Amino acid sequence: MEKYRVKPGQRIHLKDWDPNETDLLDGDKDEGKERLEALNRDLERLQELLYAEHKHKVLIVLQGMDTSGKDGVIRHVFEGVNPQGVRVANFKVPTPEELDHDYLWRIHRQTPGKGEMVIFNRSHYEDVLVVRVHGLVPAEVWQRRYAHINAFEQMLAEEGTLILKFFLHIDLDEQKKRLQARLDDPTKRWKFNPGDLQERALWAEYMRAYEDVLSKTSTDYAPWYIVPSNKKWYRNYVVASVLVEALKGLHMQYPQPKDDLSRVVIP
Amino acid sequence: MEKYRVKPGQRIHLKDWDPNETDLLDGDKDEGKERLEALNRDLERLQELLYAEHKHKVLIVLQGMDTSGKDGVIRHVFEGVNPQGVRVANFKVPTPEELDHDYLWRIHRQTPGKGEMVIFNRSHYEDVLVVRVHGLVPAEVWQRRYAHINAFEQMLAEEGTLILKFFLHIDLDEQKKRLQARLDDPTKRWKFNPGDLQERALWAEYMRAYEDVLSKTSTDYAPWYIVPSNKKWYRNYVVASVLVEALKGLHMQYPQPKDDLSRVVIP
Repeated sequence: MEKYRVKPGQRIHLKDWDPNETDLLDGDKDEGKERLEALNRDLERLQELLYAEHKHKVLIVLQGMDTSGKDGVIRHVFEGVNPQGVRVANFKVPTPEELDHDYLWRIHRQTPGKGEMVIFNRSHYEDVLVVRVHGLVPAEVWQRRYAHINAFEQMLAEEGTLILKFFLHIDLDEQKKRLQARLDDPTKRWKFNPGDLQERALWAEYMRAYEDVLSKTSTDYAPWYIVPSNKKWYRNYVVASVLVEALKGLHMQYPQPKDDLSRVVIP
Repeated sequence: MEKYRVKPGQRIHLKDWDPNETDLLDGDKDEGKERLEALNRDLERLQELLYAEHKHKVLIVLQGMDTSGKDGVIRHVFEGVNPQGVRVANFKVPTPEELDHDYLWRIHRQTPGKGEMVIFNRSHYEDVLVVRVHGLVPAEVWQRRYAHINAFEQMLAEEGTLILKFFLHIDLDEQKKRLQARLDDPTKRWKFNPGDLQERALWAEYMRAYEDVLSKTSTDYAPWYIVPSNKKWYRNYVVASVLVEALKGLHMQYPQPKDDLSRVVIP
């Protein structure tokens, strides 16, 4: 999965990243789904170990344009994982109280504790994406934020957090299909928001903003992965693979009982 | 008050800083109390303006050994200020939930919002003070934290927070007197904690840890002031003066009404 990881300092041009590719799977959609099922089982086991060991914290950041599949990844990749140790944090339009504080205030509150896995559905990156594209703060304000974000993530990492960040990469045509599906299917219509069309009109500006995010904030301690996401099954396969690999790399162990339990007799 | 401000990069040796001095006041204790009263009134007015303008955030950090006067500063300097816009955050031994997160997690939650003034009674600096002196984490862990703290405070400052940090400097003899007073006076006895004597025995280690804090984390955006604190009236005078001066420097203004109110008639 190394090919999708953005190296620190690497300058990203999204036109060079094909959202349709499925290179790391020989087979097709069925093969992808089968592999995903095996990964789901791995993830279930690893998350239980994370919870039991109570040592590491895991933070997963999901970013992408509307319809890119953030909700789909949460549903399909984390299917079967015990909700006791996994939490999803959604970051929508900030409340007045949140706006009265710095932009990392509401983010920091939601970071994982030991043994916990937290999925950010959107994140602090919106403060250099939507905030930039819509000019909600002056340029010098959002430009300073890349350094803040790197320092914040470095602190989290050095204090014991595994951070993985995924950009779900789709193209303009794929978004059109997916928005149309939302309009056509009565069971999906609730997800359609006319405001999405205004954001769609700003596609090029968003891509520029994402290119800066990916180029400036992918680090050894908090790498970005650019996930080809036109094919949903491949997207899920890639995210699950990266996650399982990274969790295995923690070499977690069930804690040893403090006392000798071999002589315990349950009365 | 410049003489008490630690310049960025300045190496601090606390033996060169006299906790008894009262150089910036010609008079005595009575003079000090009179000046403090005037500063209390200034502070009251400035805090109301801060609240009304709803633009800046103000963070005051108080650190010092036991009996150095953190509670006394809060009582005497902020006397008369409207509690609606001022909040004290006490950081005691972390709870299990707080220990499950990074050490800045509980700190960040308590930072001020716009128009608010927050006083930290102890702070994130305990994570490079008590934690270091008692060896609660390996050296490489607390050594990394100076950089985290500077980055955190820089972010807060760049996002609109005025930060002022006060080290209340007393010496070993003065602490002895004050601890003895706690034992002797039945109305102060509740403040005496036998654990304070164990900390007192580690005085030299604490001074070394404070010297590192003051040398490594005094910045233009979040300066430390070393406040001579053997004389309580002088300590209060210095803290109040620095605070009033800094708040005046914000050049705050009452917000202008959006509509023309000159023709409004109350029916």
